[in-house]
Parts: sequence; C-alpha cells; structure tokens
Amino acid sequence: GLAAPAIAQDRPKLQWRMTSSFPKSLDTLYDASLTIAKYVTEGSDGQFEIQVFAAGEIVPGLQAADAVTNGTVEMAHTCSYYYWGQDATFALGTSIPFGLNARQTNAWFYHGDGNRLMNEFFATKNIYGLPSGNTGVQMGGWYRNEINSLEDLKGQKVRIAGLAGRIVEKLGVVPQQLAGGDIYPALEKGVIDGAEFVGPYDDEKLGFVKVAPFYYYPGWWEGGPTVHSFINLEKWNELPKSYQSLLTAACQAANCDMTANYDYKNPAAIKTLVNQGAKLRSFSQDILQAAYDASKEVYAEIGASNPTFQSIYENQLEFKRDAYLWAQLAEYTYDTFMMIQQRNGAI
Amino acid sequence: GLAAPAIAQDRPKLQWRMTSSFPKSLDTLYDASLTIAKYVTEGSDGQFEIQVFAAGEIVPGLQAADAVTNGTVEMAHTCSYYYWGQDATFALGTSIPFGLNARQTNAWFYHGDGNRLMNEFFATKNIYGLPSGNTGVQMGGWYRNEINSLEDLKGQKVRIAGLAGRIVEKLGVVPQQLAGGDIYPALEKGVIDGAEFVGPYDDEKLGFVKVAPFYYYPGWWEGGPTVHSFINLEKWNELPKSYQSLLTAACQAANCDMTANYDYKNPAAIKTLVNQGAKLRSFSQDILQAAYDASKEVYAEIGASNPTFQSIYENQLEFKRDAYLWAQLAEYTYDTFMMIQQRNGAI
Repeated sequence: GLAAPAIAQDRPKLQWRMTSSFPKSLDTLYDASLTIAKYVTEGSDGQFEIQVFAAGEIVPGLQAADAVTNGTVEMAHTCSYYYWGQDATFALGTSIPFGLNARQTNAWFYHGDGNRLMNEFFATKNIYGLPSGNTGVQMGGWYRNEINSLEDLKGQKVRIAGLAGRIVEKLGVVPQQLAGGDIYPALEKGVIDGAEFVGPYDDEKLGFVKVAPFYYYPGWWEGGPTVHSFINLEKWNELPKSYQSLLTAACQAANCDMTANYDYKNPAAIKTLVNQGAKLRSFSQDILQAAYDASKEVYAEIGASNPTFQSIYENQLEFKRDAYLWAQLAEYTYDTFMMIQQRNGAI
Repeated sequence: GLAAPAIAQDRPKLQWRMTSSFPKSLDTLYDASLTIAKYVTEGSDGQFEIQVFAAGEIVPGLQAADAVTNGTVEMAHTCSYYYWGQDATFALGTSIPFGLNARQTNAWFYHGDGNRLMNEFFATKNIYGLPSGNTGVQMGGWYRNEINSLEDLKGQKVRIAGLAGRIVEKLGVVPQQLAGGDIYPALEKGVIDGAEFVGPYDDEKLGFVKVAPFYYYPGWWEGGPTVHSFINLEKWNELPKSYQSLLTAACQAANCDMTANYDYKNPAAIKTLVNQGAKLRSFSQDILQAAYDASKEVYAEIGASNPTFQSIYENQLEFKRDAYLWAQLAEYTYDTFMMIQQRNGAI
C-alpha cells in the first residue's frame, strides 16, 4: 500500500525545560545552554522547543542532576563532578585533578571510550549525558598572601570543592565550601585565605583582586572540565531519531562554542585584572608535585572500593599517557615558539 | 484569518551535493563531511539531504571553491587557503604561517571578528563559509637527511605548498608542488629531499618513513588550520531559517569532532611511526626564527597591495598578541607539568 506522508508525525510538538546549574551572570557558562536551546528550537522550526531556566528558578544549581533523574525537568546543563559525593565516578565526567586537557577530553569522549563508558554509568542514574561545553584549564585561585612553598600552604583555609578539596587536605590545606556570592566577604574579612573560582573572565566579575591579589595558576584540578547536558534517559529514549540527532549536534556545537568563548574573553580579562593589581604567580613545582602525588593516592583509595570509577579512570589514564606524549611534539613546540615571540614583543 | 499549518512549507525537500577536497582514504578529513551530512539529513528527517562526493568524483579537489561559486554544487568541504593564488586573503580563512593555534582560531572565528570578516570576503566569490574542522598543529614533514641548521636547508627541494612555499623560498628552499600520491616515489628516488603532508595519522598511510625517516616538527605554517564548508551564497540565502540553523550547528559540531578525531588518532600513530623507524626532530630555533622573520616580510609584501588581506590580517594579529599572552599562564604551565610527568613515566 501507499505510505502516508509522515512529516507531521515525525515532528511532534515538544516543550522541554532545561535547568542550568549556573546563574545568568556567569554568561560564558549560562550562554551555552541558550546556544543548545536555540539550535534545537530553530532547527526544528519551533517544534522541539527547549526553555532554559537559570540556577534556582526551578531547582538549586547543585540539584540539577537529581531533577533530571526524577523527571522534574527533561534536561539540565550542569557539571557531572558536582555529584561526586554520591559516587566519585561522576568526577570523571567533568575533570579530575591532573586529568586530560580540553582537547584531549574531547578526543576521549567522542573518539575514545569516554561517552560510552560515562553513559553506562549515567544510565544507572536514569541520565543520558552529552558533553556541552569546556572552560579549558582554569586558574588556581586568589590568595591574600604569597604561597611560595608547601610549608606556606599548611593551615591555609581555601575555598575549594570536590576531589581537589580532598587532595589538598593531604597537603595541610583546610578546604572550605562556600557559594560563589559568599567568597568575596570571606576573603575580605580573612575568614578564608584563598579561593578558587573559574578563570579571568568569570573571576573579574566578583572583584577578588581587591581583597586577595595573588592570582595563582594553573588550576591543576581542572585541566579541561566538561559541562554536560544531562537528559532524562526515558525522555531521551522517547525522542524521535531526528530530535536525538538535532540535540546531539547542538550539544557538540555548544561544546566547541563555550571553549571558543572563554578563549576569546580570557585574554582581555587577564590584562584588565593585571591593570587592577592582580599579581600573577605560578604554583611552585614542589606544590604541583605534592598535589600530583596526593591525587594518585586519592584515586587509589577511591578505586579500591569503587570498581566503576577504577575501570573508567584506567581507560582515561591509558589515553592520557599517549596523548601527553604526542602533545609534546607539534602542539607544544609551536606554542612555545609563539610565546617566545609574544614575550619578545615580536607578534 | 486562520493560519494554515506551515510544517510542510517550512521544510521543503532539498537534495544538496557537497564536494570534498579530500579522498576517502584521508578519513579524518573526509569523515567530517559525512558528519555534517549525517547531522543535517537526520536532523531534518531526510527532508534536507546532503550527499557527499569525494575529491574528483564531481570536480578535482582543488576546484571545489570554483564549483561552489558557479553553482555546480551547492556546497564543498575544503580549505580556504587552497585558493590563495586567486587572492591571498583566502589563506587567512585556514591558517597562515605562525598564525593562531586551533583553539585560538575557533575563538577568533566564533567570538571575535573572524567569521564576519571572512564572510565579507567570501561573499565577493559568491560563497558563505562555516568553519567545519581543524587538524591542530601539523607536523613539519619528512626529510631524507637531517636538517640541523639554516645552511642545511639551502637548496633542499621540499614539497610544500601555498604561502609556506613562498616563505621558505626566502630561506633558500626550492618549494615543489606535488599531489599526495606523487610524494612517495619522488622522495624514494631523491627527486625531492623532503615533503610536508599532514600529521602522524595521515602521514603513516603514505609510508614516508621508509624513504625519508627524519620527521620534523612543528609544522609552523599550520598552527591550527580550519577546514571550511563553502556554500553557494544564493543557495544559502534561499534556505529556510531552520535549515540554516541546522547546517550551522552541524558544521560547528563537525569542527569540534575533527579535532577530537585527530587528537585521538595521532597519539597512537606517532608511536607506530617511531616503531617503524621515524626519527623525531624539532626544527632548530634559528630555522624557526628565520622562517618567522621571513613570514612577516611576506605579509608586509602582500598587505601593501591587498587592503582586504591587510585589514583581516591585522585583526587576527591583534587577537594573537593577547591570546598568546594568556595561553602562557594556565594552559601552558598545566601542559608543561603533565609532560614532565609523562617523561618521568609517572602518568
């Protein structure tokens, strides 16, 4: 018999809600969710409409994953590692300290085993995940005083969350949990000695330079953190194939776009911050090495009782060995030469 | 009155042909065109169908832009710099020697002025361009003998194309134009002394290691080369907004995906090549510096008679200064530390 035209049925009218873990003021992060919504809504002629809600409008930012799991919202734009307290495996979806850089992370997700392995894990939480943004290496945070050695770190009260908090505890740091808006007054009053946030563009908005001018790098706990779209797994499975494809393309495009956005805005922001008095300092090699060694201890501790973490960690680690061998050749020597020109004022 | 349901009209049935500048055998390059076609075709339920043709199936690879300009095909997947002989401004769409790296290139295109400026130029050729892939920094090529100094370079016959060829001429190199398939026999017989191609994954396929084992880095003429979708401008303007959006998302996703593909495959390929006898060598600082200085001379020569080139070049240059200042902080120190761990066997 003759097939009926299938167009209308292939394109059901859907309205989804996406809760972001970020406030609108962090526009490089928040705007990626708008990019996803725009591509999906436009690409479907408005038939598959995604509405974005800032953190707190439906649920608090750090409850986004739970809202997806239980179907309160169809999807969220969030960081997997926010939920590492439930299961440390979540941390591997974003970045672990001394993990892959941004490009290596994308390589592992899209062409290595990353997306497959993480989605096997996410499925146990009723979630389907798509990488949807990456900040690049973040900064190491703002300190009231110079930190020249491991000894200087001991006893410092530092706003730092997640796995990194557990690692710096081994170095004698007293990690503090504070919401973004509470950091400035705590630094100002000396309630805390230091605080990590994101990078120049985001950090500038909060004005930390005025109260804690020593600005350290690199943020070794965030070498290439991915922001995810978390989608309710049943809702994902119910989508027509065309909508699944459209959403997949939109998220991959947004992933590219967020990094480009940061890479465009951070250079101007770092100059502004230096003009405002920021004193740039790199963490010393002994601090980095001690943190690196402590991170390996922590991964061994977690892996001993969490086989899912252990197997995904090892998969990522194996790629990291080869990726950092290759990265030393063309990429690193090119960038090094160009940085010499920059320092010589020859660009 | 009542509006009629607009679905069918909003989604006309279109069949487009995309000619690739690449053969199927260069799968990291060619597959990006398949990715674009898949996202667009799937995302439109097959209503906007893009068929991909390998180089030579409709037109030769280096005639892809002309085929778009004159409407032989609706679109192409090609490198803008292939057409620099028509107008050097085309080179700025892909990469110029000592230009931006891959992430900086995306920043300039998507959040700086890159896409706007390049499309003002492309429009004069009846083309609309969307970045659709990036290889990352390429390798510097294969040499039969070691090149230890500027003196060693003099008189070397090297397969190298485009602007880079014009620059190395200033260093005494005799640039040669050879199609990919002609490189191996020319190297084997000593007709040429060296040849640049792409990077480990692509180069391995052509077996250069057997006849020219010295494998140099970095490919300073390709710090972050973009592969473009070139779309016939009238065809682009006729597209419904939903198809424009879908194609835009697909190209940005493919841009991300190609880099991830290379970054996943190159690490394994470099190990294979070394096992096959490749001798890795970095270009000496005096060679890089002489090439850098020569590139600035060439840009000044071109800019003096090509104001479009000059204005886009200056726009890119201004961003490059700040981008390479910022890149020295978090990204570079993070990667450096991780590379030390890699060399110490501690990853």
